[in-house]
Amino acid sequence: MTESQLPVIEMRPYRWGVDDVELPEAAGPALAGLGVKSAAPAVDAADAVLPESTLPAEVAAALADAVGPDHVVSEAAVRVGHTRGWSTPDLLKLRSGDASDAPDAVVYPASHEQVLAVLEICARHRVAVVPFAGGTSVVGGLTPVREGFAAVIALDVRLLDSVEDLDEVSRTVTLGTGLRGTRAEALLNDAGYTLGHFPQSYEGASIGGYAAARSAGQSSAGFGRFDEMVVGMVLATPRGTIRLGTAPMSAAGPDLRQLVLGSEGTLGVITSVTVRIRPRPDVREFEGWRFDSFADGAAALRRLAQDGPLPTVLRLSDEAETAINLADPNVLGGGPGGCLAVTGFEGTADDVAARRAACFAVLTAAGGTPLGTEPGEAWRTGRYRAPYLRDPLLDAGAFVETLETATFWSGLTELRTTVTTAITDALTAQGTPPVVLCHISHVYETGASLYFTVLCAQAGDPLAQWRRAKDVANAAIRAAGATITHHHGVGTDHRATYQDEIGPLALDMLRAVKTSIDPAGIMNPGVLVG
Amino acid sequence: MTESQLPVIEMRPYRWGVDDVELPEAAGPALAGLGVKSAAPAVDAADAVLPESTLPAEVAAALADAVGPDHVVSEAAVRVGHTRGWSTPDLLKLRSGDASDAPDAVVYPASHEQVLAVLEICARHRVAVVPFAGGTSVVGGLTPVREGFAAVIALDVRLLDSVEDLDEVSRTVTLGTGLRGTRAEALLNDAGYTLGHFPQSYEGASIGGYAAARSAGQSSAGFGRFDEMVVGMVLATPRGTIRLGTAPMSAAGPDLRQLVLGSEGTLGVITSVTVRIRPRPDVREFEGWRFDSFADGAAALRRLAQDGPLPTVLRLSDEAETAINLADPNVLGGGPGGCLAVTGFEGTADDVAARRAACFAVLTAAGGTPLGTEPGEAWRTGRYRAPYLRDPLLDAGAFVETLETATFWSGLTELRTTVTTAITDALTAQGTPPVVLCHISHVYETGASLYFTVLCAQAGDPLAQWRRAKDVANAAIRAAGATITHHHGVGTDHRATYQDEIGPLALDMLRAVKTSIDPAGIMNPGVLVG
Repeated sequence: MTESQLPVIEMRPYRWGVDDVELPEAAGPALAGLGVKSAAPAVDAADAVLPESTLPAEVAAALADAVGPDHVVSEAAVRVGHTRGWSTPDLLKLRSGDASDAPDAVVYPASHEQVLAVLEICARHRVAVVPFAGGTSVVGGLTPVREGFAAVIALDVRLLDSVEDLDEVSRTVTLGTGLRGTRAEALLNDAGYTLGHFPQSYEGASIGGYAAARSAGQSSAGFGRFDEMVVGMVLATPRGTIRLGTAPMSAAGPDLRQLVLGSEGTLGVITSVTVRIRPRPDVREFEGWRFDSFADGAAALRRLAQDGPLPTVLRLSDEAETAINLADPNVLGGGPGGCLAVTGFEGTADDVAARRAACFAVLTAAGGTPLGTEPGEAWRTGRYRAPYLRDPLLDAGAFVETLETATFWSGLTELRTTVTTAITDALTAQGTPPVVLCHISHVYETGASLYFTVLCAQAGDPLAQWRRAKDVANAAIRAAGATITHHHGVGTDHRATYQDEIGPLALDMLRAVKTSIDPAGIMNPGVLVG
Repeated sequence: MTESQLPVIEMRPYRWGVDDVELPEAAGPALAGLGVKSAAPAVDAADAVLPESTLPAEVAAALADAVGPDHVVSEAAVRVGHTRGWSTPDLLKLRSGDASDAPDAVVYPASHEQVLAVLEICARHRVAVVPFAGGTSVVGGLTPVREGFAAVIALDVRLLDSVEDLDEVSRTVTLGTGLRGTRAEALLNDAGYTLGHFPQSYEGASIGGYAAARSAGQSSAGFGRFDEMVVGMVLATPRGTIRLGTAPMSAAGPDLRQLVLGSEGTLGVITSVTVRIRPRPDVREFEGWRFDSFADGAAALRRLAQDGPLPTVLRLSDEAETAINLADPNVLGGGPGGCLAVTGFEGTADDVAARRAACFAVLTAAGGTPLGTEPGEAWRTGRYRAPYLRDPLLDAGAFVETLETATFWSGLTELRTTVTTAITDALTAQGTPPVVLCHISHVYETGASLYFTVLCAQAGDPLAQWRRAKDVANAAIRAAGATITHHHGVGTDHRATYQDEIGPLALDMLRAVKTSIDPAGIMNPGVLVG
């Protein structure tokens, strides 16, 4: 394989998605209302400044021996393409031309054994390893601490793209973790199956990222979280291989799969996962519902989560998000305000019809007004498009970012108010009053997630501006006893708050786990437990 | 509180359950056919031989200071009552008068803080601690390694019996881990709720045991496993307190709840768990189905597990178990052989009617013959009674024991055959040809559990007799790649096979976790990771 056949970053490093979008016309006055002024144009990626590679020649040679010389790449464009992730702060840094976190080289192992060899070499030479697949982290999960290391490599697993052991009786399949989600889904669809995992980063994220960062997709009500799909895994660590998953469930000690899921590359590299699959749905039907208030809508979602039946997709936007997201606000009807819920049903025709009818009854009884399929289909077709707006918004001088949490139902509506207020106050105090939008996108019997989108004018130092707001939001979330992240992960951005959330003894446990299999501490240092 | 008010072992230490049962008349010829001859009568518990307590006076005094003098008990009857668990080998040892594994004292802390104090004292004085609640372990989970310790105490948590923070919006409640399952269920029923957890040890087991040993109950198809019910917990460790569970689900690192569940007392003492509860069912309907073969029945159960709808209870006995368990074999009809499946539905009347009708269609299409409610109700009313037969069987000179595993659907029927054959051969070779019965009692989308019951004549050394058969069964399970235990746990009995199942690096991770919070290694030494 020549270098040109290596996987490349198909997406531009600091623009979301696969194509350009423009802001809708209505955005102009709205942004002006927020005080948005023009921003400095983004520096071209080719002009980003990155440090000289510090990878020792001896290590580069050993790595080239292990994976082949074409699979160790240190040219600037590739290093920049593996710099940080997809958070707004990450984009802002690259837009300013700052590629200082670039890895010193990118290594492309083509097998589990090659991953083991790379980790062994890196451990011996104290080279930090950042596992990389989709590169879509929005929490600094690809920004390691460099101190104390001779160099940092990005270990790009995208050559680990096998689909093996399709077991149609057990309904499982083993996926290489370098497979992009879209590719895995397409291959499974061809065989009549679906994984059913559709996070908003679906166009870019990979199976390995789903596993390492404990992903949750938009169809989690129907298909579950990614951690519920995984029945087995193979982990390459600096000390060797760990294979987990002898049964769907077991009482043989702690469920160690759940110790690897969410470990964010700090324990090793997950090279494959065995996942549960389901028949490809025959039918998809999405519809919209109106509720008078977020509290009313949340109560209705709770009814479905606790007493069923669950749709495949179940979401509720608060009043602010509803007003912004609906292309035609008249679709809501029922006077001013109101919240849009979306229900989606996927499955066999009979199953979809039965669940949809039962949900209709529950939501109607809970005070919902059916809006028909148009708002549901609008959400479905645009489900991956919202983040595309971030690029033209940044171009226009606006700041936009998201954060998420989860808590138990009894505290949910208060948590929404608390976090919204905290963010609003923190940004208003900086002279950039924001719009804060919120939705519920993942429900459980005992609680749900909250997802916030924040939009305001960029301040002179937008990184510091957001840091202040995020700190206040984190504190509000923790003060409420909620979790610092429902599906984005910890990375480096949430590390301090995460460690407060689990407490010092649990942190000691995790650090002990890491030390036991990564004694040199090379795996994604600074992330999670760093 | 005086000593007489302390929780006592309500059940006799070597008889199962709350009352005596006699063998059915038909048992006589069947046992004779297996070559069962009379056994030595059991030694009375009062005459069991136990070692002098080695608890140093200094430690006893410190413990008395921590929990009150009445809560540190070293009288023989109480120590014998905390000796080992409920496995057949455990019973055989006690029946022979061997109480050599008795703890040196039994300590009854009345609060989380008292548990912390006890652990601190024991760590300082190198006294091993066996957490004890229901005492129903069937895998040697209450038989610690004594070497290297000054003494061993049983830490009986049954004073931790609070029911707190009933949250009817989130549908959660916090339960003290000393609560017996029956008591927790009764209290929840009074409030209109159910936990829905009914293991076969239900009459004896406690909330703490459910959590520590990763229990699965007979209604797992409808209510899930205990590990799916737990949303939070408080763990007392020798180094202090760990509190977990800030949300139903989270992406904040690994799910550490799943590291404590199944840790079997080796990390600390779980003093309370917060669990998901559901409305108490209005309606319960159970029915029986006949399938021509175990393979046919398993395929039918797989249909329900994969495509739904799931009953609340779903079980399938193989031909041998069906023949033995059915009081009236004519109920099966359809000629010789055949396997009995039981489906149970619990919930609202509408929900039960809908699921039952849908299951009826699926099972009929899968070749099942409906047998009406009689076999289902017979199973339901006798669901906790089967183990009672063990005592009169041991009295009669028979040997009876159970073991269980789980695997993926594609290997399930072959695994049943392999394990049945291995056990049959191993016992036949010892001159005691057995009857081996098997059933499926827990189903998942990707696989199911297998539960084996073994009955044969007692050999001269029944402990060695069973050890040989169990070793062969363990090897067969592992050779098939299945898990060594689906819901009994690891304890000391499965330790070696468990460590083979997870491999040396995963074992290192677990040992590192233990060392980080139990540096003196006092927590249930010899269990799981010992």
